[in-house]
Amino acid sequence: MSVARSKSAELALWLERQITTGVWPINSQIPTEGEIATEHRVGRSTVREATRSLVNLGMLESLVGRGTFVRSKSPVNSLLASYLGQQPLEQVLELRSALEAEAAALAASRRTEEQLAALQHAVELAQVSPQPRRRTSQSPGEFHADVFAAAQAPLLSDLYRSVLVIIRGALDSGRLQPMAAEASVADHQQILSAIKSGDPAEARAAAAAHVDRDVTLR
Amino acid sequence: MSVARSKSAELALWLERQITTGVWPINSQIPTEGEIATEHRVGRSTVREATRSLVNLGMLESLVGRGTFVRSKSPVNSLLASYLGQQPLEQVLELRSALEAEAAALAASRRTEEQLAALQHAVELAQVSPQPRRRTSQSPGEFHADVFAAAQAPLLSDLYRSVLVIIRGALDSGRLQPMAAEASVADHQQILSAIKSGDPAEARAAAAAHVDRDVTLR
Repeated sequence: MSVARSKSAELALWLERQITTGVWPINSQIPTEGEIATEHRVGRSTVREATRSLVNLGMLESLVGRGTFVRSKSPVNSLLASYLGQQPLEQVLELRSALEAEAAALAASRRTEEQLAALQHAVELAQVSPQPRRRTSQSPGEFHADVFAAAQAPLLSDLYRSVLVIIRGALDSGRLQPMAAEASVADHQQILSAIKSGDPAEARAAAAAHVDRDVTLR
Repeated sequence: MSVARSKSAELALWLERQITTGVWPINSQIPTEGEIATEHRVGRSTVREATRSLVNLGMLESLVGRGTFVRSKSPVNSLLASYLGQQPLEQVLELRSALEAEAAALAASRRTEEQLAALQHAVELAQVSPQPRRRTSQSPGEFHADVFAAAQAPLLSDLYRSVLVIIRGALDSGRLQPMAAEASVADHQQILSAIKSGDPAEARAAAAAHVDRDVTLR
């Protein structure tokens, strides 16, 4: 019993490493139970137990008849996203505000010249062609994503990613309404100028004021 | 197989409810495998599987020869605390700053007269007898705890609780040094007066400035 348990716990650690190191990327299909059992010289029930513990953490998803797929690189991110999904949306917006304001303050004191140029580019792009925003993206070239990059704060970025899952869902379902693109650009311009002049307090205040206006509950 | 799996999943949900509803409080010992098996008319292996999934989430801890104990009311809090424990301390402090600043801002716009009185009492107590602070407590009467109470933001408070676990550990081990009690009281006075005058921006700025000074890495 204790030997079987430690074998499956060991195998679970190996599975987790394949995911966290990126050997198995997000959304990829992992090898079959039989393949893993053969490779590690363990029984299929050991593989099943190890796999199930990662399914419980939300890192893997097993689809009947289709196989097992990688869904999250970290047990915390997936659990946090599902936890945040159960909270009132107002409270998730409060957390977003906390993270954005801190990220802007850190960006003001840490941004490199390159990161500053990326932020300026994002604002200029939006000035030239303000698009009606359907979703808050985290891709480079999007202002908020670039602020988090300039903040150089991996933990805040991690939490922000989980928050974005909820915000995007609420924008898609119409529970949240984004502010007008032109007003958003003006706000971003203010945050940018505080980050540019290296004033954390001003950047924090500008980001907090913007987030309050950025999306509204219907 | 699929019947056995759904039985253990059902039982895991029942175990979780016993914990989240407080029937089994934190640190209490849960009934034995045999007792639970008899009560639910399932095999002991089903109980073992269900228990293990909660152990994996950090909600239960099994101690060999002593029994199984409740360790966390939420899978997120325990996982988050262990995740935060693996992050560089600087980054945990950044998250703390984000949460404290937002809580102060919310407190400024939401505090009731009673909560304001509690905050004033906490500051006055510290003015009369400034104690060398060994730990940041979350008990009523402690300024930071009272700010979070006045913010009326359960999600931020939840995350703050997980952050405090790390901060306390770092204060105890000497990796973090608290600021002098007198300076801390002066900072709290500033945050209080912003909360009193209902100025979220000022409260946010005062809290952020205080957190930057409050504890320092050795």
